[in-house]
Amino acid sequence: MKNFASDNTSGVHPQIFEALQKANISNVPAYGDDEYSQLAAKVIKQHFGEHVVPYFVLLGTAANVLSLGSVTPSWGAVICADTAHINSDECGAPEAKMGCKLFTVPNVNGKITPEACLPTIQAAKDNVHHSQPKVISITQSTELGTVYTPNEIKALADFAHANGLYLHVDGARLSNAAVTLNLPFKAFTTDLGVDLLSLGGTKNGLMFGEAVVFLNPALAENFIYMRKQSMQLLSKMRFVATQFIEYLEADLWKTNATNANIMAKRLADGIKDVSAVKICYPVQANALFVRIETKLLERLAKEYYFYVLDPNDHKDYPKGYQLVRWMTSFNTTTEQVDDFIQAIRK
Amino acid sequence: MKNFASDNTSGVHPQIFEALQKANISNVPAYGDDEYSQLAAKVIKQHFGEHVVPYFVLLGTAANVLSLGSVTPSWGAVICADTAHINSDECGAPEAKMGCKLFTVPNVNGKITPEACLPTIQAAKDNVHHSQPKVISITQSTELGTVYTPNEIKALADFAHANGLYLHVDGARLSNAAVTLNLPFKAFTTDLGVDLLSLGGTKNGLMFGEAVVFLNPALAENFIYMRKQSMQLLSKMRFVATQFIEYLEADLWKTNATNANIMAKRLADGIKDVSAVKICYPVQANALFVRIETKLLERLAKEYYFYVLDPNDHKDYPKGYQLVRWMTSFNTTTEQVDDFIQAIRK
Amino acid sequence: MKNFASDNTSGVHPQIFEALQKANISNVPAYGDDEYSQLAAKVIKQHFGEHVVPYFVLLGTAANVLSLGSVTPSWGAVICADTAHINSDECGAPEAKMGCKLFTVPNVNGKITPEACLPTIQAAKDNVHHSQPKVISITQSTELGTVYTPNEIKALADFAHANGLYLHVDGARLSNAAVTLNLPFKAFTTDLGVDLLSLGGTKNGLMFGEAVVFLNPALAENFIYMRKQSMQLLSKMRFVATQFIEYLEADLWKTNATNANIMAKRLADGIKDVSAVKICYPVQANALFVRIETKLLERLAKEYYFYVLDPNDHKDYPKGYQLVRWMTSFNTTTEQVDDFIQAIRK
Amino acid sequence: MKNFASDNTSGVHPQIFEALQKANISNVPAYGDDEYSQLAAKVIKQHFGEHVVPYFVLLGTAANVLSLGSVTPSWGAVICADTAHINSDECGAPEAKMGCKLFTVPNVNGKITPEACLPTIQAAKDNVHHSQPKVISITQSTELGTVYTPNEIKALADFAHANGLYLHVDGARLSNAAVTLNLPFKAFTTDLGVDLLSLGGTKNGLMFGEAVVFLNPALAENFIYMRKQSMQLLSKMRFVATQFIEYLEADLWKTNATNANIMAKRLADGIKDVSAVKICYPVQANALFVRIETKLLERLAKEYYFYVLDPNDHKDYPKGYQLVRWMTSFNTTTEQVDDFIQAIRK
Repeated sequence: MKNFASDNTSGVHPQIFEALQKANISNVPAYGDDEYSQLAAKVIKQHFGEHVVPYFVLLGTAANVLSLGSVTPSWGAVICADTAHINSDECGAPEAKMGCKLFTVPNVNGKITPEACLPTIQAAKDNVHHSQPKVISITQSTELGTVYTPNEIKALADFAHANGLYLHVDGARLSNAAVTLNLPFKAFTTDLGVDLLSLGGTKNGLMFGEAVVFLNPALAENFIYMRKQSMQLLSKMRFVATQFIEYLEADLWKTNATNANIMAKRLADGIKDVSAVKICYPVQANALFVRIETKLLERLAKEYYFYVLDPNDHKDYPKGYQLVRWMTSFNTTTEQVDDFIQAIRK
Repeated sequence: MKNFASDNTSGVHPQIFEALQKANISNVPAYGDDEYSQLAAKVIKQHFGEHVVPYFVLLGTAANVLSLGSVTPSWGAVICADTAHINSDECGAPEAKMGCKLFTVPNVNGKITPEACLPTIQAAKDNVHHSQPKVISITQSTELGTVYTPNEIKALADFAHANGLYLHVDGARLSNAAVTLNLPFKAFTTDLGVDLLSLGGTKNGLMFGEAVVFLNPALAENFIYMRKQSMQLLSKMRFVATQFIEYLEADLWKTNATNANIMAKRLADGIKDVSAVKICYPVQANALFVRIETKLLERLAKEYYFYVLDPNDHKDYPKGYQLVRWMTSFNTTTEQVDDFIQAIRK
Repeated sequence: MKNFASDNTSGVHPQIFEALQKANISNVPAYGDDEYSQLAAKVIKQHFGEHVVPYFVLLGTAANVLSLGSVTPSWGAVICADTAHINSDECGAPEAKMGCKLFTVPNVNGKITPEACLPTIQAAKDNVHHSQPKVISITQSTELGTVYTPNEIKALADFAHANGLYLHVDGARLSNAAVTLNLPFKAFTTDLGVDLLSLGGTKNGLMFGEAVVFLNPALAENFIYMRKQSMQLLSKMRFVATQFIEYLEADLWKTNATNANIMAKRLADGIKDVSAVKICYPVQANALFVRIETKLLERLAKEYYFYVLDPNDHKDYPKGYQLVRWMTSFNTTTEQVDDFIQAIRK
Repeated sequence: MKNFASDNTSGVHPQIFEALQKANISNVPAYGDDEYSQLAAKVIKQHFGEHVVPYFVLLGTAANVLSLGSVTPSWGAVICADTAHINSDECGAPEAKMGCKLFTVPNVNGKITPEACLPTIQAAKDNVHHSQPKVISITQSTELGTVYTPNEIKALADFAHANGLYLHVDGARLSNAAVTLNLPFKAFTTDLGVDLLSLGGTKNGLMFGEAVVFLNPALAENFIYMRKQSMQLLSKMRFVATQFIEYLEADLWKTNATNANIMAKRLADGIKDVSAVKICYPVQANALFVRIETKLLERLAKEYYFYVLDPNDHKDYPKGYQLVRWMTSFNTTTEQVDDFIQAIRK
């Protein structure tokens, strides 16, 4: 079935497979004490700054939960958008596994601002009955397919620090944002004051594995114990490391994200004049959220696999319409997009 | 200082003190294996139904957290009003100590409805990425000083059960609601299908101690271990039990709550025509939420102790105004209220 | 029934009751922001050092779990005796509520030594698969009715600090130890390098309430949030504080513990030549552990209430014998003891 | 460097790589809703019984922690050998992430018996101060390289069930045990009453991924939520599934484990008459624990990589000796073993 459901329904990029093969030579120490892991750390430092401290985990939920948990005591809280993946799609892991309270604030196009965060901080200040905010978490690119500008990130980092908080970036799709911003990773993370980063790859061609990158290295001190205890320390860790080496050294991240972004843009351009659909948010990465006539939706759904979203989250559209998400990926082709456009326009 | 801050700033009713004294005779088995505890359980059954199973804990936060925890696995969720005490004033205890996710829904006058809860349930259904709602929690009387009607409770209980959830009542101020409704406890809890109850007393004249009452006794099975582990099993438990015996047997709960409610009503009546203040919610228990001119507030605050509320929670009033809460208690006197009215009217 | 079961089956000392009454005047701020709480803190500082930081909680399990939790991250561990109350009698609260791993080490007469702790520390060092020891916890007086000497405590404190750990004392019966050592509290806690203390009173005449005392004040920083979240912040906190004021200011702790200790000694002296019983550990506080002929035990059990201990914990005695614990309390009388001795000697 | 450290320092079997490649065709639904996952479940059922319910997770610690957590409430406990991996090498994950208390019992050659478990169960019975045992966990093959016989497992299963407990098997090296016993998996797990199984593969040629297999399917009910929340639900889950299909369908598990076991036996046979070494436990799987002269150890360590064990755990040998573990793997060759034997005999 033709698939615009998610960038994680795609498989593994051939170069990543080769990298996995390359690492399968001889016995090496387990649990990350191997040369692949050392080299992968070096490569990440090249992209984010020599002083950063990266650790590999196995999937995006873990990268988020562990990075937030490393700066949030049980009585601490995370401020995030109501649309944040950590709030809606991690089955309560931050709360149950780290004791984090999530204070959600309203988003605009998937993004939050210092102004939106301020009331929560003020209400908790010196109030022993409230969880104490410790970190602001944003997603880049966002869950709604938009991208924070460097200025927006800088403002959040400065605001967080001025209030004694850290800034975390859920970078499950950081590559897509980097392509859109046309900036190296460091320029819109480390250089702006971001403290912690979940660095993803699985949605952009890897098989599995993400990294928690402590851009503020002081926060990394005891992470190795937290990672082991949270069941994220693979014995054959070299097979995560080797993927990241290939991903970052060979600019595979950029090639892949560029394709995904271009395909999303192509799809958006191809349907923008169709009256039965309306694109809800700026298409700045590899996702389209589209208000669609139920009739059209039903026709498309016979041939294409994609998500119809919870109507409760998106009430601002008339009866007879529904909300769908269409995502492109590193392996989406021009033919697939054009074929989909044609189907929509039919 | 004259005090309208909270019903928990008052002391202990003299009859409760006598009850404590009465229980201080000879050595008795510790940890609730004593006659006072048995009698207290009997008395609670008389008020809520012979089949109910009550357990004593030490304070209201514990009654809430443990009752919710007893029906919510780590991947489960509680649906509650955004104004719920469990959400705003328990420092993340439900999340951190029981692993509960709280799904908050908008309130009207402190109350929630089946309609408000439905979208959350629908969104989570069969979705492995979402915490699974297991219980709806309401507060009676509410955090805004209003009271659910029996019909409203019945509707929530039926709705909860139809969706495989339980209904919990945070009854920190259940007595005030009982007086308002002019109903025995059972008539607006057990008889309507409420499954679990936090039964308070500290805000109405006790020294310490609350009860978790399993109106649905099947849910009580393993509670004793949860209570011990959650640090709520006092060795000299008889001193909680003896208070509840006095509180419930002698109708002290009613005497005390009646006074508190009458005093709140008297205060409301005495200020309703004052233009500098506006009462925000129906005064149905022992709390007034009042929009007040900042000038007047500042004058009153010199002589009276009360809470000025977080403006972020209550934005629906013009500049130059603030929001305050005034509470009455079992020991509030007519003189104190009239004196306060006069000060406001000055 | 005559009762030698535990010092927590006794009631509340009359002076404590008077103190409770004294605090029941007028309305005061809730949650410990009251004058009683301030005075109680001052009194504790007089006993333990001006720089210490005390916080009240509601019972001994909480004092232990919260003090240990305040220095132990989820991946941290506590080293304690296999006989420690935190290991055997708190229903897994340190593990489940704070994430602590307990590393138990063998005891001699209820006491542990640096030598006994060393292997655990060595095994965990730089080993990411092991929980990392953060604190050594000892009980004073011990669960077996013995008392650590100042030299023994000093050795443990020095050892703990040399290895980057803290020393915690479970002082549920600290008063009994103080009487035995004939030393002020400070001399065998703060002055020897103890970092954290659970200071009990309930087993020595209080109604409820214990204190977590941070002898190392740097550790207290965020305790107020942990206390609230762990359901230990009573609204009417003044009623805990007033008990401690009376307990410590009037030397009630000493009067009560002295009686308990003398009664235990009297009982021990009165039975030491009885062939059917054998006292297992030095009687240095208010507890006797006695190997007893089953026949005699059965006769005594008809008239007296006391604990028969788990035979699995104490296998070093022949068939036909069992192990019992006899405890004395602040309100045990000479007559009760002599009567019990007579019954044993019959 | 020549490596006898662990079976997890080896890489991935070539057939497994081919299986990974085979699964990399086209887009498929994420999170296990794919054909590979369905087929893998079917294959596991063929090996363990049509009624069993398998779920994939990412590594062995997770398989253990989640299977134990699925039958152990926060106030529940797991009984296991003091040598159990869950006790010594999972950084407190069962305690911190599931709230489990571990009750360890003494092992004989890495194995435990009903008799060893009984006292713990008796002590906890009806005792609200004790965590309540819910499951017995054994490791097959054990951490000491031995193998439980079917009779031993049956006895433990019957004992567990008679006491209201479940039996869990940590099968990180179940294949090695199956080869030794010369029995199909089902014959020494499902058929004997084992309730839950952690089924490993990574130590026997897989890249990553293990399975939690509910042999008692009633226990699986809510596992999907627990898995997601515990950060074990990979988006590209097909890449775990495809490995297990290859592993189990093609009898790769047997080929690989047979080699590892034979190599261990060969090594044992080759050194049994060397006076400087003494094999401590029966060599029944792929591990040797060897008491070795320090002098010899130091010579070997220059050329070979292996673990020198914590001397505190193994005190039963004279000065001048140390304890080492030598493991063989699916890719250990006759030449490597013979070369090692020669080095030892030199």
